[in-house]
Amino acid sequence: MKKINGGITAAEDFLTAGIRIGIKEEGLDLGVIYSNHLANVAAVFTTNQAAAAPVKISRDACDNGLAQALVVNSGNANACTGEQGYQDGKKMAKLTAEELELDIKEVLVASTGIIGELLAMDKIESGIKKVCNSLAKDKNETLAQAIMTTDTYKKERAVEIELAGKKVKLGAVAKGSGMIEPNMATMLSFITTDAAITSELLQEALSEAVGESFNKITVDGDQSTNDTVAIMANGSAGNDLIVKRNQDFEKFLEALKYLCKELAKDIVKDGEGANKFVTVKVTGARTKKQAAKVARKVANSNLFKTALFGEDVNWGRIVAAAGASGVEFELDLLEIALNDVAILARGEKEVDNRAELKKEIKKDELTFEINLNSGSKSNKIWTCDLSYKYVAINAEYHT
Amino acid sequence: MKKINGGITAAEDFLTAGIRIGIKEEGLDLGVIYSNHLANVAAVFTTNQAAAAPVKISRDACDNGLAQALVVNSGNANACTGEQGYQDGKKMAKLTAEELELDIKEVLVASTGIIGELLAMDKIESGIKKVCNSLAKDKNETLAQAIMTTDTYKKERAVEIELAGKKVKLGAVAKGSGMIEPNMATMLSFITTDAAITSELLQEALSEAVGESFNKITVDGDQSTNDTVAIMANGSAGNDLIVKRNQDFEKFLEALKYLCKELAKDIVKDGEGANKFVTVKVTGARTKKQAAKVARKVANSNLFKTALFGEDVNWGRIVAAAGASGVEFELDLLEIALNDVAILARGEKEVDNRAELKKEIKKDELTFEINLNSGSKSNKIWTCDLSYKYVAINAEYHT
Repeated sequence: MKKINGGITAAEDFLTAGIRIGIKEEGLDLGVIYSNHLANVAAVFTTNQAAAAPVKISRDACDNGLAQALVVNSGNANACTGEQGYQDGKKMAKLTAEELELDIKEVLVASTGIIGELLAMDKIESGIKKVCNSLAKDKNETLAQAIMTTDTYKKERAVEIELAGKKVKLGAVAKGSGMIEPNMATMLSFITTDAAITSELLQEALSEAVGESFNKITVDGDQSTNDTVAIMANGSAGNDLIVKRNQDFEKFLEALKYLCKELAKDIVKDGEGANKFVTVKVTGARTKKQAAKVARKVANSNLFKTALFGEDVNWGRIVAAAGASGVEFELDLLEIALNDVAILARGEKEVDNRAELKKEIKKDELTFEINLNSGSKSNKIWTCDLSYKYVAINAEYHT
Repeated sequence: MKKINGGITAAEDFLTAGIRIGIKEEGLDLGVIYSNHLANVAAVFTTNQAAAAPVKISRDACDNGLAQALVVNSGNANACTGEQGYQDGKKMAKLTAEELELDIKEVLVASTGIIGELLAMDKIESGIKKVCNSLAKDKNETLAQAIMTTDTYKKERAVEIELAGKKVKLGAVAKGSGMIEPNMATMLSFITTDAAITSELLQEALSEAVGESFNKITVDGDQSTNDTVAIMANGSAGNDLIVKRNQDFEKFLEALKYLCKELAKDIVKDGEGANKFVTVKVTGARTKKQAAKVARKVANSNLFKTALFGEDVNWGRIVAAAGASGVEFELDLLEIALNDVAILARGEKEVDNRAELKKEIKKDELTFEINLNSGSKSNKIWTCDLSYKYVAINAEYHT
């Protein structure tokens, strides 16, 4: 696997563009991703009961496993907008389909930004015409910018792999994870690949990759109405069509996981007010699910997160959060370490590593390992600290 | 029911005292509550897997439904202190029992404060002698002070009721809910009554009252290792012993609920960095449990809580949090109101009450009603906003 440039258009036969239509106060805010021919598609959407209109529309569009384009705007999430919002989302798909001579069912829709306000459809309408007419191979950066909300930098990655002698490329963009801007935001990630793979296996690979990446991050425990990860595979690489979980599939999956993990980490690093990238790893659990439950409870603890911001190795807060996770474990067996330096040993004994820990906690990347010593399963969650800036960003914005 | 003075010693035949022994940096930090004769006892403890030593000891002591004294210290939670911590907690009970000529099984123990450090048993030992020798009727305020950690004011309440012509009193103290000080704190509440009631019914009444009060508050979603609510009923009022859920029981329960609710509200109002007292009320749910689940998810949302701090009626964050609660509802049917002023009407339509809502959100006490319109059950949670001061208190402390 080799890192390459090109982001969302690194793979063959994908074009894109991002333009400004004036929905956000500044910056690009409308984009399209287009495959030169029909692609297999797979997607993972938010499980929020209040799923936004574009999520419903894209979910339906993915039903037959085929798509050729995706239209996305930032600055307005088209969420909690009722029947009108649904019609507006459908219209976005229809306008894009008309412009690119596709069937409306071949177009996915995504939105991110303010909640509860109707889209400025006049801007969207003229914008879609314009953006569809400016699609190009080298405009990946404009698309990456066009999906940003509170993100402070664009997030794109691409890799190349070889499947039985054929070069196969995967490219991706994402936006995070401050959950607001102005009103709420969203985790969006779009991935393109020229691999030939059935939509069933594409969905399997995507679900698995998302489970180990985007589903493992938490900034504030809040979940958006618009979260969407979608992948299009157009087969232009000419590899043997992947129809089962063979060696080619495993290589493809590995590359997809890499992309998703790196982008998920980028999102956490760029979390609202975040200063530290923190891995909470739970080992020695009875099941992977229990390990994840403990890790998530710790990673979402405001007390733990404020201690990280204060650069204090406050293991009591870790123990308390783990204890409140609902997962049974023996307190006597618990071990905790930071970047491999022991903090708490079995028998609830604090290890005298204060000087060393004081140095470790100052680092930008921290890994806390919590060993429950009650089984052999492990899991991890990525998170960040809770700072004044998080409160500032989220308290000072006014609807 | 009549409000009276006297706090934890308002009821007949209870004595108390709080003194300073130097565990906390300043202020009173050791206290005893004593009944002149053996009382029935009931208690509710933290469900945290990492329950502290005093919780384990008191849980055992409550087994036979009898107790006569309670010893409590602040400044050190005696949590995550292993076998030594357990022995220290037992010694606190033993010393108190010796001093008051009781059986060790008749003494409850509670601790709140720093986690992971052993108690200064020399101070505790001389302190217990001293405090037991200064027990008095009029020292309720010193006990209320001796259990405080980050609390900014003492919390005590008492009421009097009449059961078939006999005056019955209930008194209570509590401490909150800043979950730290210096390392982590705890919700403690102790209640005394001169009612004659079996320990079984006392437990029923307490569990029910706690379920509607202390279990309905959340400051930051974190749960302490030491949370304890205990009640002693010594029968000195001379009422007919309550042995079943008759009218006397209902009156007693009503008074107990009142005390617990008022103290729970006091704890939220005094939450770390809290500026607002917020009730999240969910109505129109299919079950009470589902209503509570939605209310708790909203009340614990950092995005919702920072918006409260910023005095912004950000209903999108409420919708998103409700949608992420795991409870199924129809987004189209959702209604939201603040202090009875409509925000969101059915069909995801924002109601144009901006001017009025802007005024309401400035108030110190807010009630958000979220009507799911999918059933007839309701529930509520009390919470507060998330401010810079919360981050400050919890980030700036160093272990």
